[in-house]
Amino acid sequence: MHTVISSPTRTVTIGSDQPFCIIGERINPTGRKKFQEQLRAGDLSMIAVDVEQQVAGGADVLDVNMGVPLTDEAELMRKAVVMVQSITDLPLCLDSSVIDALEAGLQVYQGKALVNSITAEDERADAVLPLVKRYGAAIIALTNDEFGIPMDPQERLAMCEKLMSLCERHGVPLEDLVIDPLCMTVGADSEAGKVLFETIHLIKEKHGLNMTIGASNISFGLPNRHAANAAFLPMAMQAGLTSAVMDARTEGIVTAVRAADLMLGNDAWGANWIARFRAKQAAEAAANA
Amino acid sequence: MHTVISSPTRTVTIGSDQPFCIIGERINPTGRKKFQEQLRAGDLSMIAVDVEQQVAGGADVLDVNMGVPLTDEAELMRKAVVMVQSITDLPLCLDSSVIDALEAGLQVYQGKALVNSITAEDERADAVLPLVKRYGAAIIALTNDEFGIPMDPQERLAMCEKLMSLCERHGVPLEDLVIDPLCMTVGADSEAGKVLFETIHLIKEKHGLNMTIGASNISFGLPNRHAANAAFLPMAMQAGLTSAVMDARTEGIVTAVRAADLMLGNDAWGANWIARFRAKQAAEAAANA
Repeated sequence: MHTVISSPTRTVTIGSDQPFCIIGERINPTGRKKFQEQLRAGDLSMIAVDVEQQVAGGADVLDVNMGVPLTDEAELMRKAVVMVQSITDLPLCLDSSVIDALEAGLQVYQGKALVNSITAEDERADAVLPLVKRYGAAIIALTNDEFGIPMDPQERLAMCEKLMSLCERHGVPLEDLVIDPLCMTVGADSEAGKVLFETIHLIKEKHGLNMTIGASNISFGLPNRHAANAAFLPMAMQAGLTSAVMDARTEGIVTAVRAADLMLGNDAWGANWIARFRAKQAAEAAANA
Repeated sequence: MHTVISSPTRTVTIGSDQPFCIIGERINPTGRKKFQEQLRAGDLSMIAVDVEQQVAGGADVLDVNMGVPLTDEAELMRKAVVMVQSITDLPLCLDSSVIDALEAGLQVYQGKALVNSITAEDERADAVLPLVKRYGAAIIALTNDEFGIPMDPQERLAMCEKLMSLCERHGVPLEDLVIDPLCMTVGADSEAGKVLFETIHLIKEKHGLNMTIGASNISFGLPNRHAANAAFLPMAMQAGLTSAVMDARTEGIVTAVRAADLMLGNDAWGANWIARFRAKQAAEAAANA
């Protein structure tokens, strides 16, 4: 199964026979007070810095979230999408809890966007999926509903199947559905990783759908989070995960993902791995020159 | 399935509900000319250095190989086993292609040893398994035979099943059998990782046996091998690998293994992970004091 998203000049294919799709998560004011104040004052300049860093770190797609309280989020999203597309050709993932903001972003987005997100709750799905259909986008869909997040992999699989039927109801093809099997925190529940890996494996084996997660959740509250995340993502990839929303600035984690591509046979002859190593050597040589 | 090995004062349990078993591979003169010369001259002092480094790095078991050409390997193995057991309480893995050397090691070993190794070739298995049975040891068994290494996971599974019947024939219980599903090099064959992960998954699902590999093979010939291996081992663990023969001196790889324990629910509340982080902080503080 291939999920294809695009900008006017670049196409990204998500699939189990493709290099892992890194969705850079940084263009998001959540928890960033200064960025929020700038956006509220109409200053979008920080976005350019974030874009540059995510692109430099190796993001394949950029998540754009403009969730600033007490603003016209639809207007901010519209401006941000136009601005980001003016400085990078990476495809975008339009991320909002506000349906008007998703629609505003889709109206101006050039190409085939990814939309973040729906859950298995009918009300939101029935509002968002018609937009996804109308604009020919793809959609991230979380395996929870209004009653919570099941901790049994079979129940999460059932949630995935409900999401599939919601897509069918709205005429959104399954290749445009990217399931988020929900990454919880191992610090709070030692079984969280196992449950996730088993859910990913079940969804892959039974339906072959593409999947993405918010990867950094796994290590919340633990020390040495980068090392924990760098081990975790290759494990999830081995189980069948094909994408993650993550901060591309952390080199060790991106390197782990590219190593896992190699181990899964998605980097023939290690060409990307070797090119990555040479680029790093060249950068170090230039820095020391 | 639990494989239990021991020294007089320490027991190591290998199993999918246990922290991963790191078998330190360094006590081995292969490719080390100076060490070979020392051993040929009867100087075993280098062994103490190797033991200390593998223990400090976090090995759970130590592999002891005394394969020096043109020596009495049985006599060397006997001396090495006695010496290593005098300086560490970690259980040992007795590693030789020479059956007399394995028997010499087993004669003096105190505890329940792991023996490295047999393949699915009858002749060697029929010589080694009676020793394993007589001394109550456990055995590493490779999924190849005199006709080669199959690159199809189902054929490697069949090889595993032949090894199970060889053990049955010699009265060696399956909990004392540790399968080596064979780690080939992704630089030579892009499918090598996928084939291995699928073989591990099949053996785990069908027979629940413990498995170990020579892990560093995976990245032979590639740049940045430590980073490649640090991503690879968590993936193999996610598939069901429960042990590896590896060099415990590389901190990044051992850290990746301990992170994967946490992700698999084999480090409740992250207690080991947090303790490891604190010990590192304390060591750094002491170094800077």
